Formats: sequence, structure tokens, C-alpha cells
Amino acid sequence: MERAAFLRELKRVLPEEALLSDPEDLRPFECDALAAYTVLPWIAVLPETVEQVRAVLRLCHSQNVPVVARGAGTGLSGGALPVADGVLLSLAKFDRILEIDPANRMARVQPGVRNLAISEAAAPFGLYYAPDPSSQVACTIGGNVAENSGGVHCLKYGLTVHNVLQVSLLTVEGEPLTLGSLGLDGPSYDLLALINGSEGLLGVIVEVVVKLLPVPETARTLLAAFSSIEAAGDAVAGVIGAGLVPAGLEMMDNLTLRATENFVHAGYPVDAAAVVLCEMDGMAEQVEAEIARARRVLESHGATEVREARDEAERRKFWAGRKAAFPAVGRIAPDYYCIDGTIPRKRLAEVLGRIGELSEQFGLAVGNVFHAGDGNLHPLILYDASHPGELERAEALGEEILTLCVEVGGTVTGEHGVGIEKLGPMCVQFGAPELRQFHALKAAFDAGGLLNPGKAVPTLMRCAELGRMHVHGGRLPHPELERF
Amino acid sequence: MERAAFLRELKRVLPEEALLSDPEDLRPFECDALAAYTVLPWIAVLPETVEQVRAVLRLCHSQNVPVVARGAGTGLSGGALPVADGVLLSLAKFDRILEIDPANRMARVQPGVRNLAISEAAAPFGLYYAPDPSSQVACTIGGNVAENSGGVHCLKYGLTVHNVLQVSLLTVEGEPLTLGSLGLDGPSYDLLALINGSEGLLGVIVEVVVKLLPVPETARTLLAAFSSIEAAGDAVAGVIGAGLVPAGLEMMDNLTLRATENFVHAGYPVDAAAVVLCEMDGMAEQVEAEIARARRVLESHGATEVREARDEAERRKFWAGRKAAFPAVGRIAPDYYCIDGTIPRKRLAEVLGRIGELSEQFGLAVGNVFHAGDGNLHPLILYDASHPGELERAEALGEEILTLCVEVGGTVTGEHGVGIEKLGPMCVQFGAPELRQFHALKAAFDAGGLLNPGKAVPTLMRCAELGRMHVHGGRLPHPELERF
Repeated sequence: MERAAFLRELKRVLPEEALLSDPEDLRPFECDALAAYTVLPWIAVLPETVEQVRAVLRLCHSQNVPVVARGAGTGLSGGALPVADGVLLSLAKFDRILEIDPANRMARVQPGVRNLAISEAAAPFGLYYAPDPSSQVACTIGGNVAENSGGVHCLKYGLTVHNVLQVSLLTVEGEPLTLGSLGLDGPSYDLLALINGSEGLLGVIVEVVVKLLPVPETARTLLAAFSSIEAAGDAVAGVIGAGLVPAGLEMMDNLTLRATENFVHAGYPVDAAAVVLCEMDGMAEQVEAEIARARRVLESHGATEVREARDEAERRKFWAGRKAAFPAVGRIAPDYYCIDGTIPRKRLAEVLGRIGELSEQFGLAVGNVFHAGDGNLHPLILYDASHPGELERAEALGEEILTLCVEVGGTVTGEHGVGIEKLGPMCVQFGAPELRQFHALKAAFDAGGLLNPGKAVPTLMRCAELGRMHVHGGRLPHPELERF
Repeated sequence: MERAAFLRELKRVLPEEALLSDPEDLRPFECDALAAYTVLPWIAVLPETVEQVRAVLRLCHSQNVPVVARGAGTGLSGGALPVADGVLLSLAKFDRILEIDPANRMARVQPGVRNLAISEAAAPFGLYYAPDPSSQVACTIGGNVAENSGGVHCLKYGLTVHNVLQVSLLTVEGEPLTLGSLGLDGPSYDLLALINGSEGLLGVIVEVVVKLLPVPETARTLLAAFSSIEAAGDAVAGVIGAGLVPAGLEMMDNLTLRATENFVHAGYPVDAAAVVLCEMDGMAEQVEAEIARARRVLESHGATEVREARDEAERRKFWAGRKAAFPAVGRIAPDYYCIDGTIPRKRLAEVLGRIGELSEQFGLAVGNVFHAGDGNLHPLILYDASHPGELERAEALGEEILTLCVEVGGTVTGEHGVGIEKLGPMCVQFGAPELRQFHALKAAFDAGGLLNPGKAVPTLMRCAELGRMHVHGGRLPHPELERF
């Protein structure tokens, strides 16, 4: 269908103001937080009701028009990048909290509700929503489900998938599906888990029921300094090995420490090679015991200093630094590229050492700030996009690091999703049988491939063209990886 | 293909002793623990290598022969019931623990390894595998994954899906897939979660990597008695509401208590209307604090007695009683039917009251013994199969109870699976769009429907014939439920 004709059809199901087609109006939707890539959508729509979303989907489906759903656009992997011949479906107007049910400890919300807004609404009942991505002020719950977002506290409280009870979505045909239940577990195939992290390829989320947790009675935080990054890595493994489950267990290297301290003045020891932040939360007596034990473990692993936040103000300062680490690094280099891979915790020290070597080899500085307790790395590669070839070198280094993650038994994404960013690394992570199965599964929801096309799962052709090699069982079939 | 010809083909890929075709040899496979239903399989095979499993699957696929995989056959919902025109594929010979990796805290095992055997093998390293179904001495990890099994400790440590890192399976075509990773989370669709609880309909599991946890330093258990079952239900909600996460939080009513005490002599207070068992585990100081707090909560909810197990021997006795509750009830009635539904915890007292009313209405005694902390009910319906019509009445009462679970926002199965048992209740739980999506998903793995046919997901036709009504959003569209 011609664009004008299609717009006329859309006007029959949407109010005037919910329909954007002028280039200036479309510009704000041309990228998400992976801003190196931009595409102007064909048309953007901002429906207000589920019936309108349904009508848009049915129209797109009947006319074979692709649809890219979008929350706040804070995603880091390009998952909400528009397609030039498709509709950008913004769920921004679905921003209502429909129900806070303190007795059953859950909240029913629309997909465009901001992550932090849920905890704010639950606060009067002494409850909160646990997963806390760094972007929680802005990012929306629909996007969190689509990307299966994590955060500082997911070591203890789990990823989004562990904190969502029910999701209502519309299929590409506009068919409503209710997945999950308000009870523990659910019968039959776990479509709820499947939707978490499906990056908008299987359906459009129109309602989410999340678990709420009681706000912990107390939280206390240790800051431990180390004279080598390997020692810090071993200390993290030691804390977990001691059977402790910190609410947060984070690590920052010297580069990140200095950048952050200059920016936030959190009182970090800027001479340390690395610091570990270790937070315990829960009942006072239990936290007392856990903090004492964590301190002993950190000291026995060679911490040069272990300091506890004296009060709530200092504790918040410790975390403000950690949460501001990305923008802080952004101040010391013209550009940075944030990588997101996971590794088995025990390999931390080794992998950090190898990242240091790769950094030298590529001639690009790398800052490390990450969810150490989860083994979820976020190397920040510093580069200057105005130097020809430097973006490409940063991307090549990023792929090397992700290949390394797969080699040691980890994955190419912890919490940022694949989007368009990691289609190449996906070819390293998975072999042809798994990729074929992913495509078959996608077809069971969206046979025409209209929902968020070109994201999350590479075609087999693409993997063949890239010459990517599947790393099987944690070992590369061919150790010489010249191509990366 | 004729049976004789098919047997000849099987003999080309399997050793003589791995192939059973005489009725006497097939008899042991005619049912699982839902013994009211039996079917003699066409042929049974007991391969020893993945290559043999692959060859069997390829042969079956090429000849359009159904395949039912089976672990130990301890399942309670008929998930391993053979089909008369299909191959029963026993994985009993896949009983090797391939690797215990204490540094990364995981075990790589074959699917026929018994649940408890993993913990036994991990014990020298101070580690264990957390999910503990009552059948853990006998049930196998492959079956645990297929049913997403729970157990007494899954309130704190999660279901099977939360304790499995990686599953290797063969598709119906014999294609190998590796799902999940050794790192946190994984990219793309969460096929690992999808396989957990898929009841053998999507593939044949040939290897499992499970998480191991450190054996808790200490465990202490409270037994609280109540003069009404509603008070006990409220106390359970109170414990959770206080922010405590017990390792186990179980409840038994008077009928079950008396049956169990006569059988095991655990020292239970047989005059109580209900008892709650509450176990805390972890570091000594933390457990001390949690036990004190739990005691206060239980007392403030009207416990007539709160007693702590004096020593490890008494603690084991408390649990021995709970774990023997099913067979104990089996001693006081000719037959019993174990129901498995979940409800939001907060509705415990109300639902238990309504189960009591239904029990009177149907004229069948019901014992209640269950994972109260999870809201996972196991009503045991007592009946006598030798009385004509009584089995049918027990089944009808069971369906009423499951409908009630769905009505209050729960589900028709907590941990026993759907199998053949709950195909009817699945029509209550789900509407046509969800069921259609389940079938589409199944087709993405097994287009011919050869793997475990007739289980887990009812056909739309069946739901229409049964006249079942979907309970939408926790409310029945038609409150008058004469049909049930």
C-alpha cells in the first residue's frame, strides 16, 4: 500500500494526534540509546488504548507492514531502532499504574510505566519493585520485559523474568494472550519466560503484573580497595564462595574510579587498582552478621582497605558513583562503547587480565565497571569517532571481548539484549541448529516476520557471510581467530 | 511400517538388550505414578549413547512413529504414559555424573541421574542440588526438567528452572540443541526456560548442567500448632508478609497429621487443627535472628504451641513426617488422589475453607498437606476405587478444586505437570488464543506431533467437547459452574 493510503487507513483507527508522519516529528524516534545507528521510521504511532494497538497491528498485518514497538528508547543494543518501511509503535502513552495490591504483593501496570515509578507508587505500602537498571528513572517496564533487564540488585533479587508474574500481549495479528499467572509457576510451556528477553519479536506487550517485595529493613554497604584487578576479581568469587548473597556486588577498575570520583566525589580511593562495592540488605541482625563475614572475606583476599558507609548519606554516595560511572567515563573520552557480556564468576580475574591485554593490542583504553557478583561485565571501550577507523576498531575489540566471554562458557549479553548490535556475536554463541530453532519459534508467533525485523537473531546467511564460528561447549573449534 | 519391520530397523541401530518387545518386558513401562491409567507401549528402547537416541529418533521421525521419553516414571500426572502405537524411550541407562565442578559450582549430568545422587556426589565439596521433590530418591533430573519439579525447599531456592544452567537435547529429527549457558542469563529467546516444564513435547533431554549451592551452615525448624486451618493459613501469609524467606514453609491439616503421626511417630501434636513447619537455613547468626522473628509472627497469629526441633535428629523427624505424608494417608484410605494447584498465598485461608465445603458436598474426605509458602496446594482426596463411581467423583472434586485455584488467580498445576491428568483443567486455565499459541509453539519444534502426543496441551476440540469455560483474569465468565 502507498504511504498516503496507509496513513488514511491509520486515521480511521487512531486519533489525529496519535499519528506522526512529518520527518521532524519522526526524528525523536530515529534511534534508541545505541545512538551510532539511526533510521527514520516510515510512520510513527502513539496509541492510547489496547484497542487502538490492536487495530494498528491488524492493519499492519493485513498490509504486510513491519512494526517496531518502543518504550522509552533507553535500550543500549538498538532493539528499538526503527525500520525505514515500517511503523514505529510507541507505547509512551500507556503510562498508568492500574493497581497496587499490597496483600498479594503485586502491581498491575501499563507497559509505558517507568521502572522507578512502580517503586514510588508501592512505597506507601513499604514495598518496591526490585530490578533496577541504571536507566530506571527513564526506562519503562515494557522495555524491561522485552530486554529481560537486570541491574545492580539482580544478584540477589533476579532479573526481570524473575520479578514478573503475568504479561498480556497482542500477537502480530492483534490476538490477545495472557501469559503467566498470579500463582507460583504455571502449567504448559513457559511463554512468560519466553517473552522476557524476546526483544519485541514475538508480540506487543500491553500490560504487566510485577512482583513487589518488602523494602528491606536495613541496607549496609562495604567498599573494599585492591592493589590489583585480579585480587578484586578473586575477592568477588570469595564472597560468593563463602555462601553470601549480597544485594549488590559491584566492581570498578582504576580508570573508572578516577573518572567517577572526578565527576561525583563519592570519596572513592582513586589510587586503588580496583574497588569492590558489597551491599547486604534485610533484617538488621542478619545484615550485621553478613557484613562482618563479608568484611573478613574481603580482607582475607588482600583488600588494602575495607570501609563501611558510615550512614545512609554515604551509602547513597557510594552507589551514586557506581550508577554515574558510564556518564563519568563519557567525560574523559570523546566516545565510549559499552560492552555487555557474562562469564562464570570464577573466571573473573582471568578474563579481566585478558581484556587488559586486548586493550593494549587494540590501542584503546578500556574501563571496567560491572555487576561482578553476576559475572556480568560492562567493559567501556574509549575511542574517538572523529578519528577515521576508530569506531570500527572499538567494535572489533568489543567483539573480541564477547568472543572471549563465550570461550570461557559465558554469553554475549547479560542484560542489554542483542538488538542490532550483537548479531555478529550471536553467530559465535550459537550454532546453526539453535539459530534454526530460534527462527522456527519466531515463526510460531509471527510467520511473516513483521515484528521488529532484523533484530535479536541473525539469519544463517549472515553468520555464513560473516564467517563467524560457533564456539561449542566453551571451546572454539579453531583457536586462531584472525577474523575478530 | 509393520512392527516386525520396524523392529528390524531398530536392531540395526541398537544392541539386542536395548530393545524390548515382549509384553512381559513392556509391562514395567505401562504407567508412571498416575497408576490409574495404563497403556502398553508398542515397543520400548533403552539406549546407552546419545548416538543411539539420535538414531532411534531419526528412525521414528522417518516412519512417523510417536516417541514417549521416560525417566524413572515417578511423575504424578501421567506424563510418561506410553502410547499404544509408539516407542517408549527409557533414559534409565543415562545415569552417569559427568562432572562436578566445585569452582564454578555446577554439575554436568546425564538425564537418568537420580535427583539425590547429584547432591550425594557434590557433598564432598560441601555443595548440593537444591530442588528436592518428595520422590528425590528415585526421580531423575531429566524428568525434573521435563516437569519443572519443585519440592519443600523451592520457596527459597526456586524450581528446577531456577537451578538449571544448560540443557542439551535432541529434536524430534535428532538434531542436537544446546540451550542456556554457564553464565547468567543468555541471549535471545529463553529456550532453556521453555524446555523446563515442557513435559517431553519439544525434545529429548540428553544432558543437564545444574547449579550447585553450598550446603547451608545450619538449619533450624519450628513446628507451630493452630486450632483452625484458617489461622494456620493466615500465619503462613504473616511469615511471608514479615519479609522472611524460609527454606521451607509447609502445612498439614488434622487428617494428614494424624495419619502421619501413626505412621512415622514424628511427635506431631495430633489434636491441632493444623501445623506449620517453618525452616530457616544459612549462617548461624542469621538463622538465629530469623527463627526468633518467625516464632514471634507465628505466636502473634494465634499458634497454640511453637516448638523448635531440639536437635538434628528431631529436625529430621519433623521432615520425615512431612515427606511421608502421602504414603501415610495412603494407609488410612483404600485410594487417594493427589491434587496439585497453586494460589496466591494471601488466599490460603479462604481456599482451604472452600475445599472443606467441597469435601462435604462431594462426601469425600480431603487431607491437606502442602508447600504453604509457595501457595502450592496438594489436597489428597480419599476414596475407594472399588465403590462404583467413586473414582469419577474424586476426579470431579479434583477438577472443582483446580477451578477454584484458577478463580482466585492461581494455576491448575504447581509442580506435577499437566500430563494426561489435567487436560480438562487446562481448558479452564487458558482460552483459545493461548492454546492456539501453545500448539504453534509445539509445531515449531515438532511439526508432526510425534513427541509425547496427547499430553500437556488439550486440543481446542477437546475443550469444546468438554464444555470447559476459560476463567479469565481470575474471574469465571459464568459464575454458575454446574458442569463441574
